[in-house]
Amino acid sequence: MIKQYLLSPGPTPIPNEVALAMSETMIHHRTPQFNKVFEEARQGLKTLFGTNGDVLILASSGTGAMEAAVANLFSPGDKVLVINGGKFGERWLNIANAFGLDPVEVKVEWGKAVKVDVVEKQLNLHPDIQSVMIQASETSTTVLHPVKEIAKLTKNGPLFLVDGVTAVGVLPVPLDEWGIDALVTGSQKALMLPPGLGFIALSERAWQKTKKAKLPRFYFDLNLERKNQAKGSGAFTPAVSLIFGLRASLDMMAREGFDRVYARHARMARATRAAATAMGLKLLAPDSPSPAATGIFLPKGLDADKVLDYLRDQMGVILAEGQDQLRGKAIRIAHVGYMGAFDVITAIAALEMALRKFGAEIPFGRGVAAAQEVLMEALN
Amino acid sequence: MIKQYLLSPGPTPIPNEVALAMSETMIHHRTPQFNKVFEEARQGLKTLFGTNGDVLILASSGTGAMEAAVANLFSPGDKVLVINGGKFGERWLNIANAFGLDPVEVKVEWGKAVKVDVVEKQLNLHPDIQSVMIQASETSTTVLHPVKEIAKLTKNGPLFLVDGVTAVGVLPVPLDEWGIDALVTGSQKALMLPPGLGFIALSERAWQKTKKAKLPRFYFDLNLERKNQAKGSGAFTPAVSLIFGLRASLDMMAREGFDRVYARHARMARATRAAATAMGLKLLAPDSPSPAATGIFLPKGLDADKVLDYLRDQMGVILAEGQDQLRGKAIRIAHVGYMGAFDVITAIAALEMALRKFGAEIPFGRGVAAAQEVLMEALN
Repeated sequence: MIKQYLLSPGPTPIPNEVALAMSETMIHHRTPQFNKVFEEARQGLKTLFGTNGDVLILASSGTGAMEAAVANLFSPGDKVLVINGGKFGERWLNIANAFGLDPVEVKVEWGKAVKVDVVEKQLNLHPDIQSVMIQASETSTTVLHPVKEIAKLTKNGPLFLVDGVTAVGVLPVPLDEWGIDALVTGSQKALMLPPGLGFIALSERAWQKTKKAKLPRFYFDLNLERKNQAKGSGAFTPAVSLIFGLRASLDMMAREGFDRVYARHARMARATRAAATAMGLKLLAPDSPSPAATGIFLPKGLDADKVLDYLRDQMGVILAEGQDQLRGKAIRIAHVGYMGAFDVITAIAALEMALRKFGAEIPFGRGVAAAQEVLMEALN
Repeated sequence: MIKQYLLSPGPTPIPNEVALAMSETMIHHRTPQFNKVFEEARQGLKTLFGTNGDVLILASSGTGAMEAAVANLFSPGDKVLVINGGKFGERWLNIANAFGLDPVEVKVEWGKAVKVDVVEKQLNLHPDIQSVMIQASETSTTVLHPVKEIAKLTKNGPLFLVDGVTAVGVLPVPLDEWGIDALVTGSQKALMLPPGLGFIALSERAWQKTKKAKLPRFYFDLNLERKNQAKGSGAFTPAVSLIFGLRASLDMMAREGFDRVYARHARMARATRAAATAMGLKLLAPDSPSPAATGIFLPKGLDADKVLDYLRDQMGVILAEGQDQLRGKAIRIAHVGYMGAFDVITAIAALEMALRKFGAEIPFGRGVAAAQEVLMEALN
């Protein structure tokens, strides 16, 4: 037995309270009993998304919710501006291409946030742009993009589509207040659930736009879902046990207090960055880091994939790899969802030990101590 | 939400694999289906107890199994030698008194192991002693007593009763090989189960002794249980779901390998002691420490109970208090059952932080680094 410590940016650990809720007796989804659970989850999601409008629950991954946004809002050939600063920026691009849109790509160096003035320039250059698509938190590069600022640019112009997969529940992304037009997330991050649910909320003007959007959709027909979900279930069979779990996780977050949830994530991220810096390691996204995960370059000459395999197989500690051009060079430590101070400590202590194993000369306890200093701040 | 990290010497964390086994559909206990589960658990227990004889499963706590040993082996007025070096030594004494035995007490300073020659002297002084009663690991003082050595003294003399509650599954306590006459444990320690099961194994000469023992027993009638459990269930209703979990936990231990289970506990204990020492803290049992838990004196002037309350309520880290005369002065960190390297790190990092909060000047990371050095030894 090697005890497992799951510290990846999704799936994330499941609280027992949520696991127990998902183990409730299976019920039929066209019943008042299920309608009640569903309605309570819907209300919780509105708070989480910062909207008075509907948040729709889909039996899909987060990518399904991204596709739903595109399929319901556009017509073939629509020009859209895609901020592409990582694997999930690429995903917006791939969806746009798959559906025959005309994407204008804003390439952003991995590890950097997009600059607001670059977006502004593109919008001025292409007045026929129908939409800006972005990640709030680009999980692959652990970057936080300036969503609030870009929303100011799109307010009376193109629709602003935000992939909030490692942002919603990690930091405030209030749809109504900021003027986001479509906000999506998945269940396996801050919501502390297994994968299997996608979520999407639209602004009122986005709902208007759906009426003119000509792209084909059936499973992800959001107007059909909106009508049905208001009646307490959904157009197709909902993922019943995950929705039991969703109600429980939203309840846990409400009891903790959303402000405290956000503060906890911010603190865990700061502690991780402080630890990496104290260990003499370079951050992947030093300027605009995401509070959901921290990318760290390993010392030159070390194969990050081998270090990660070692952490997983010999130490039971599951961190995430760098993707594409970062593969073998960087790792990512998540601090999203059901994680606390000592999960950060575990990640750092394990990294210190693995790096020594691979020959890096970093004194034990140095990163841990830097993390402890930050984590202490939360203690009264 | 403050995420909980349970690091107490029982109850201990439950692996998901065990929790899932306990969630199996309830079945009737007088069925071939249950008999099979029960029989597989019985076989696993024989390996764990190091005996070819029966290990009986009781629906009770570990104390119930201690009482069963006394009630089945003695007659009123029997003289017994009780090694009393802590709360659980006292428990043998209390049971002996409650059943009208004539206990001779060997008081041992808390934090020390009993000396073999002291036991030998008492046995010579009282040739009519029927039994020696001891803890293998005295959980309250985190001391390991010299069970193997004392067993040599009792081999052809008095019965040797060993409370193995935080020893069985933590270190080897082979009943047949060492010549123990009664070995008991409970479910909520190394067996990684919730509380609710007691276990007892007797030597062949102890089984002979039961026939002459006149103390009253009904629920804990071990001959009745032995006969019924051989048929695949037990005299009374067994704790069905706990026994499902027991089969799963024994299977986990067998897959890890019992030698590796023992080595893991020894290593976690050494790491904890190294950390405490590096932090300048005094160990409660420096000379003969238990591998199940480590007692640590806090710096003078600190109220240990307040530190523990703070760890639990503000940090979510559950350690154990010192008992009786140690109350307020010492704490205990457990490393028993479903625990791994990073549970030790969590305990030490949390203690460093709590001690700073209470004014002790211990640099962050110093204890953690010492623990890391020891924990590294297990890594290839």
